[in-house]
Amino acid sequence: MSKSLPKRSENYSEWYNELVKRADLAENSAVRGCMVIKPYGYSIWEKMQRALDDMFKETGHENAYFPLFVPKSLFEAEEKNAEGFAKECAVVTHYRLKNNPDKPGKLMVDPEAKLEEELIVRPTSEAIIWSTYKNWIQSYRDLPLLINQWANVVRWEMRTRLFLRTAEFLWQEGHTAHASQEEAIEETEKMIEVYATFAEQFMAVPVVRGRKSANERFAGAEETYCIEAMMQDGRALQAGTSHFLGQNFAKAFDVKFLSKENKQDYVWGTSWGVSTRLMGALIMAHSDDEGLILPPKLAPIQVVIVPIFKGEEQLVQITEVINPIVAALKKRGISVKFDTSDKQSPGFKFAQYELKGVPVRLAIGARDLGNGTVEIARRDTKVKATYPIDSVIDTVTNLLEDIQTNIYQRAIDFRASHTFKVDTWEEFMTIIESEELGFISAHWDGTPETEEKIKELTKATIRCIPLNAVEEEGTCILTGKPSGRRVVFAKAY
Amino acid sequence: MSKSLPKRSENYSEWYNELVKRADLAENSAVRGCMVIKPYGYSIWEKMQRALDDMFKETGHENAYFPLFVPKSLFEAEEKNAEGFAKECAVVTHYRLKNNPDKPGKLMVDPEAKLEEELIVRPTSEAIIWSTYKNWIQSYRDLPLLINQWANVVRWEMRTRLFLRTAEFLWQEGHTAHASQEEAIEETEKMIEVYATFAEQFMAVPVVRGRKSANERFAGAEETYCIEAMMQDGRALQAGTSHFLGQNFAKAFDVKFLSKENKQDYVWGTSWGVSTRLMGALIMAHSDDEGLILPPKLAPIQVVIVPIFKGEEQLVQITEVINPIVAALKKRGISVKFDTSDKQSPGFKFAQYELKGVPVRLAIGARDLGNGTVEIARRDTKVKATYPIDSVIDTVTNLLEDIQTNIYQRAIDFRASHTFKVDTWEEFMTIIESEELGFISAHWDGTPETEEKIKELTKATIRCIPLNAVEEEGTCILTGKPSGRRVVFAKAY
Repeated sequence: MSKSLPKRSENYSEWYNELVKRADLAENSAVRGCMVIKPYGYSIWEKMQRALDDMFKETGHENAYFPLFVPKSLFEAEEKNAEGFAKECAVVTHYRLKNNPDKPGKLMVDPEAKLEEELIVRPTSEAIIWSTYKNWIQSYRDLPLLINQWANVVRWEMRTRLFLRTAEFLWQEGHTAHASQEEAIEETEKMIEVYATFAEQFMAVPVVRGRKSANERFAGAEETYCIEAMMQDGRALQAGTSHFLGQNFAKAFDVKFLSKENKQDYVWGTSWGVSTRLMGALIMAHSDDEGLILPPKLAPIQVVIVPIFKGEEQLVQITEVINPIVAALKKRGISVKFDTSDKQSPGFKFAQYELKGVPVRLAIGARDLGNGTVEIARRDTKVKATYPIDSVIDTVTNLLEDIQTNIYQRAIDFRASHTFKVDTWEEFMTIIESEELGFISAHWDGTPETEEKIKELTKATIRCIPLNAVEEEGTCILTGKPSGRRVVFAKAY
Repeated sequence: MSKSLPKRSENYSEWYNELVKRADLAENSAVRGCMVIKPYGYSIWEKMQRALDDMFKETGHENAYFPLFVPKSLFEAEEKNAEGFAKECAVVTHYRLKNNPDKPGKLMVDPEAKLEEELIVRPTSEAIIWSTYKNWIQSYRDLPLLINQWANVVRWEMRTRLFLRTAEFLWQEGHTAHASQEEAIEETEKMIEVYATFAEQFMAVPVVRGRKSANERFAGAEETYCIEAMMQDGRALQAGTSHFLGQNFAKAFDVKFLSKENKQDYVWGTSWGVSTRLMGALIMAHSDDEGLILPPKLAPIQVVIVPIFKGEEQLVQITEVINPIVAALKKRGISVKFDTSDKQSPGFKFAQYELKGVPVRLAIGARDLGNGTVEIARRDTKVKATYPIDSVIDTVTNLLEDIQTNIYQRAIDFRASHTFKVDTWEEFMTIIESEELGFISAHWDGTPETEEKIKELTKATIRCIPLNAVEEEGTCILTGKPSGRRVVFAKAY
């Protein structure tokens, strides 16, 4: 707490890393690339989980749990999927340790306990789940099968960053099976819209809904939908994906069903997921040089009350006034912390709760008591004002709604001022080489080669082909070849 | 559904296995020893999680998340703990697959991607967590540290059974750190009482609270508390454990704190956990030859309403009457399913919901409509009766409470009639060789040798030294040596 955070304008990346640690969200662990999610960070994740889980259930999905391990023979069954993940798989090869005869008290892998078939720690669960679905699906009556799983997955990434890219991460993965292509596509689109709604209404992060180019598709998918959010450094962050799997996994695992017309056909599939990466998006979309700014809907503590007192007697007087306020706020479903600790000064506490992004702070001292007032500060704008005590409940309730709306609007405005319609390569390069960055809406000739070339030249990638893109004749920003619609380019996390 | 379940009296074990599968709770997976928890089973687990999580939070604990993997060097740091789990560890040795040059389209472990240090898939998380706590704890101000984690763990068991013993299972593990021995012991005892309360009040399963003998202690603990439940075959099932770790892990990981008295001392620890094994206890404690019997507090569907109708018109009439009932029940927080499907006969549905343990079933047909009545059946006793429609809401509400109480009382009565105070080896053997089995309260001389010998001779183990055991002079059932209190023996899962 003694040192202030690095400034975003000076070193955005360092600011992020430090903020994640100092706000007690997460830290690196003794295991390369794996993080510890600390209680405060985890409590935000729990709120995300709860909201998402409710949305999944409202759209007819049920939770289930499938094994952590995938036998290698199943893993490799869908070849594209296997190829996509093979280079980052943690592999279990043995099932026992034994005492190391050369080093008393130390253990070694028991060479006699080698598995006949290696087990892959799931990087994603299509393989194990579709091998199970084979037994669950016989007829159209068994469809659609709408299942979600909350789980940990492992992808052996070489360069990791807390929340954004870790070897192990937490996520949910939906895996659905359908009787027709249309229905599967409808599900894929429905779930990307669920994610977009969650990002916008809970995280207060506006997102572009779109489809990935063929290059960026999920390995094994026919089509990948995504939502892309803009961070405060102008970079894009992919915040969720929803895949139309066609019949790829059904064919790989021989999952057929008897249709209403009494014909055998392969099942159509989807999968979709969001992960603890959302934590990174949440942090980077709103926070400032003083610390986190959390949307009230996801803040573990929505209101903190800091008494300013000398001696027990003053605290008792303040407590008498505050207790009914705490009770009334809780009754409205608002989470409140009344921090009566005398180990830290009010100023220290103010900074601490700012760092942790608590949306609303009340401060009340002896003089306020006499005046019948409270000082209320909002975290997003840092505006402070004095209110009569008897208006506090409504003021706080309204403020929380206001903050949720305000930070969303701020993010929308930021994105608008960092989104550029570009028609020449020169303009494109100017933006991509500037510090501000942003989303570039430009024409592309639709070929993987051009996409690759642009990535090589600029490190910018096609984030998505927006779902609401208008048909528009144009010419590719790089090659000058004809294009039918603009796509979104950006540098990305 | 066509075949009925095996009878408990004929083959209890087969009955259990079949019930788990037919009630759609879980099934074996393609991975040896790992289960798939199906949606219906998982929804019961979710209810357990929610109730337990609330209890943990009420007692001051916070959730966090620690890595799945434990580097071997950390794993072996607490030697007793390491030794206890070494023989059942899944070990990750490689982090990449590559194309198999000999088998096109197939993958192989890339020998060049061998980890410098092997990673153990956590069988329990003391090691990784205490290595983290080292950085979190400096002074008494950082204590107590009260953290819980919901996670998957892996123990490579050779003989597995759905829910009861699986290579991977889901659980929660609490890990707390304290400034004094007294406080750590108090926490250990508090949490075993939380588990006991959950088992009795939510699962409706009475449990014996006790301490384990030294032989049966958790590897690395100074004392292990447990709760032991009796299944309908008279066997014991350990349903939860809470460990006082002393300073063992603090010493192994060098976790010290500065006390109020300004002295450096090692921290005192506890850990405690319950797992998906509770699902096995829940199933075996109450269910009958027709299927599951679920306590209303954990039943995903508490009330099912089955309309008996011919043609759309009758269904419309019934629906008009039923819709307000569904709404009123939901308003009371009761989960209701109104099953209007016409694909299955009412009789088929009745059997199906019996199999799945839905506590209350309403049936209503055209004649009931005329009479203004509904037939209500309770799952636990199978008693059916006809009630006026306008009394349904209160009747159902009362019935749910009644069923919760009744199955708990039934389990208490069963346990009482299968608990035997025994003073001679002959009596002991008679019970242990009978089919009914049960808990045997008998004297033991307190030595591991005698405990081992009794296990060898009878397969019965000391389940626990009950917390409420009275001081009582007696002689050991096997050796005749003096004993100060009775312990509980049983054959166990």
